[in-house]
Amino acid sequence: MAMAPPPSSHPSLHLILAVSAFLAVSTLIFADGLELGGGEGDGLYREILRDETVLRLKELGKISDGEGYLERTFLSPASIRATNVIVSWMKDAGLTTWVDQMGNIHGRFEPANCTREALLLGSHMDTVIDAGMYDGSLGIICAISALKVLKNAGKLQRLTRPVEVIAFSDEEGVRFQTTFLGSAAVAGTLPESILQVSDKSGTTVQDVLKLNSFEATAAALGQARYSPESVGSYVEVHMEQGPVLEALQYPLGVVKGIAGQTRLKVIVDGSQGHAGTVPMKLRRDPMVAAAELVVTLESLCKDPNKFLTYDEECGCFTEESLAGLVCTVGELLTWPSASNVIPGQVNFTVDIRAMDDKVRETIVTSFSRLVLQKCDDRLVICAVEHKHSAPATPCDPELTTHLKRAARSTVSELPGRTAAGETPVLMSGAGHDAMAMAKLTKVGMLFVRCRGGVSHSPEESVMDDDVWAAGLALLNFVEQNVVAELEAEQRAAVAEL
Amino acid sequence: MAMAPPPSSHPSLHLILAVSAFLAVSTLIFADGLELGGGEGDGLYREILRDETVLRLKELGKISDGEGYLERTFLSPASIRATNVIVSWMKDAGLTTWVDQMGNIHGRFEPANCTREALLLGSHMDTVIDAGMYDGSLGIICAISALKVLKNAGKLQRLTRPVEVIAFSDEEGVRFQTTFLGSAAVAGTLPESILQVSDKSGTTVQDVLKLNSFEATAAALGQARYSPESVGSYVEVHMEQGPVLEALQYPLGVVKGIAGQTRLKVIVDGSQGHAGTVPMKLRRDPMVAAAELVVTLESLCKDPNKFLTYDEECGCFTEESLAGLVCTVGELLTWPSASNVIPGQVNFTVDIRAMDDKVRETIVTSFSRLVLQKCDDRLVICAVEHKHSAPATPCDPELTTHLKRAARSTVSELPGRTAAGETPVLMSGAGHDAMAMAKLTKVGMLFVRCRGGVSHSPEESVMDDDVWAAGLALLNFVEQNVVAELEAEQRAAVAEL
Repeated sequence: MAMAPPPSSHPSLHLILAVSAFLAVSTLIFADGLELGGGEGDGLYREILRDETVLRLKELGKISDGEGYLERTFLSPASIRATNVIVSWMKDAGLTTWVDQMGNIHGRFEPANCTREALLLGSHMDTVIDAGMYDGSLGIICAISALKVLKNAGKLQRLTRPVEVIAFSDEEGVRFQTTFLGSAAVAGTLPESILQVSDKSGTTVQDVLKLNSFEATAAALGQARYSPESVGSYVEVHMEQGPVLEALQYPLGVVKGIAGQTRLKVIVDGSQGHAGTVPMKLRRDPMVAAAELVVTLESLCKDPNKFLTYDEECGCFTEESLAGLVCTVGELLTWPSASNVIPGQVNFTVDIRAMDDKVRETIVTSFSRLVLQKCDDRLVICAVEHKHSAPATPCDPELTTHLKRAARSTVSELPGRTAAGETPVLMSGAGHDAMAMAKLTKVGMLFVRCRGGVSHSPEESVMDDDVWAAGLALLNFVEQNVVAELEAEQRAAVAEL
Repeated sequence: MAMAPPPSSHPSLHLILAVSAFLAVSTLIFADGLELGGGEGDGLYREILRDETVLRLKELGKISDGEGYLERTFLSPASIRATNVIVSWMKDAGLTTWVDQMGNIHGRFEPANCTREALLLGSHMDTVIDAGMYDGSLGIICAISALKVLKNAGKLQRLTRPVEVIAFSDEEGVRFQTTFLGSAAVAGTLPESILQVSDKSGTTVQDVLKLNSFEATAAALGQARYSPESVGSYVEVHMEQGPVLEALQYPLGVVKGIAGQTRLKVIVDGSQGHAGTVPMKLRRDPMVAAAELVVTLESLCKDPNKFLTYDEECGCFTEESLAGLVCTVGELLTWPSASNVIPGQVNFTVDIRAMDDKVRETIVTSFSRLVLQKCDDRLVICAVEHKHSAPATPCDPELTTHLKRAARSTVSELPGRTAAGETPVLMSGAGHDAMAMAKLTKVGMLFVRCRGGVSHSPEESVMDDDVWAAGLALLNFVEQNVVAELEAEQRAAVAEL
């Protein structure tokens, strides 16, 4: 078969060439012996989707503001260096690039004479402190690699809608303690007041933007915003950051939604005293009370039906809803924190997440009641502060079905794969740019297996073959849904002939 | 009755005057209308033992290295200023004063031609950071006040043995993290190596001593040591630092012993992860494991018999031994301590104290076993580190009986007292100079009620009337045991006449 056609503005020629292409391809991927970067004819594009992607992950993972560890926060010097590198990779994939007024990097292919809504792909380029090299970067580089395969295969021109990779400038929120600076700007949900938010040193978002020659005005922020009409969907590849896929021995999973979240702070005030002089019976010890509450929270989350009152009973605790319910105490502080002093105050954080908002709300209500009840029993004074609450973000069912199919066929194709059965469907407990983008458009997510569920740590690890699987699945998805879209039209056109 | 006699070296005159004094006094205290500092004839010496003592507590409580809070550590500038003030009060009480080579302040009355063992009274003059004004100071000032009453009553000369007040230079150990620098020097148990111990700034004990014109040599430390033959007993008045006397509505209590103590550190290693992405069932969460252990420790201490294995069963958990058993988790640290991260490690301190060493050791063994058992169940890895262990220090039963009687008679005498029944007998969970002095001599302690059991805090509070009760009880004790001793001899002499 001939090389894919050069860009043409002549519709009929375009159509004829496209029809001939359609007839030659499998239903899922192109297997037409195209010349690739490294030259592979098995349709698995190992050299780009595995080897080069892994090399690029390592290269980006070295661009850091820290010495000996990875740290790349919003518009930091390392972020600017990373921007140049990502732009060069986007260009290498045949994309037109620009950096928007919030520092997001865009790489887009716009088919000729196309007015359709764009498919956006992406993830974030910023990191936590002492980060791993996969969180965020994997989604950006996989997307660039998938488009590079299309370019090398001469298929970019056959896209039926614009496809764009976005490397978001801030998702972790490390510098300004406010997540989604990048994706929220694109989604148009970032308030103007964000410009005045300060980092620890007193530098504002506006200062940082100006320092990097951005306009840093409310009007400029508005320019970063996409209109909902211009966007068809957003798809993000991300490492799982949890242990489920590893436990299931499956390299990829699709995400049915991003969990809703409630953050509480529980403050337990007791009676501070000398560890040696206050008899056990006379203590009002906030440490033991807090410990009891931590254990209670775990029991409640594992088996809510044991704890619910008649009023709280919602009938919403199915086996499925329970699987997605997680409760965590990540931080506990004692005061005055001396080994020989019964603490006067203990406070701790509570993080409750669930796909089902009713489940989450019921757990919050029930836990708050249990806190007051157990604190009463111990004669300590407890307060439950609500710090944050966000509803669940469902992924688009149709996008998810397409991603699931693409992942399934990918896993069955790759050499040495033994994984069988359906692509696992997961909920995402972590927040992602997809959460912000859901305010703009339909979203879908593909999760990639990682070692031990570890993330936000230099110990993050994704197998090279799983990186490959992710890139190939994304490629399959794009082909099935953006290239194949055209082909379906072409089939219709052929039928009419 | 006439004023008490001037010091005389003539034994027979001394004897005759003493006999006449004996015949005029009650069996417990002098009620002979002596001219006191402020002039009171009821034998309750309110102006010295209450009003002046409270004024002096306030005065000493203002001598601080901190601005707006009380901090007076070993040989700090404020300690030197406090030394001058305490020396002046000792002189005012008719005592001969000196400062030894470890900075301890001594004020002694030595009866003429007396070779008997001395009665030592005292407590510590150093404080914690942001301290209250009673901890330590109360015992020093009460003792000085009691001797001032004797002096004003002309009774110092009638002492049958030397009586000495010592203000120890360091008990809290704030500066060098090593307790009892002062009393251990007097007891002769301070190792020479102490001179090389450094504070946070790198200054050694030796440096500080030299800076304050002490010799700062091992030989000089030896000079501070008292020979066991020269000392008959040590008695310390101290605020309770616990809530028992307040709960019993009794101003004074006697101490039967100072608890033995074990300090452990428990380290729980789990699997760090994202709070949103690791299902409850797949977690190895060290926070929940640690919380469960904190609750377990409390249950074990409250009702050990529920937990002991056949091997651990000691038959030592009587109602009395349980009353003195206390277990505390004062400090708990989470890592990395973020609300959205399942901790990777949690560690916490354990402080276990009991009067009965067998009880304490059994609890330590049993708790260590429970830690490993519960950690196994949760698939987390636990280690129990032994940081410190000290056996219990019993107070001398005879001294304690005398103190108990003195306290009882005092409480029944003071105006407005409704307390009935026996003087409470407490164990001291806190360490005291008496613990170090027990290596030298018999020790006894008198506890004074405080508000809410609060200590090591500016909120420390002892009622003025309870300060009075403490001083009067100490006066009664000295009179019954050091003055009355003479009278008993005199009675015997009279009987022989």
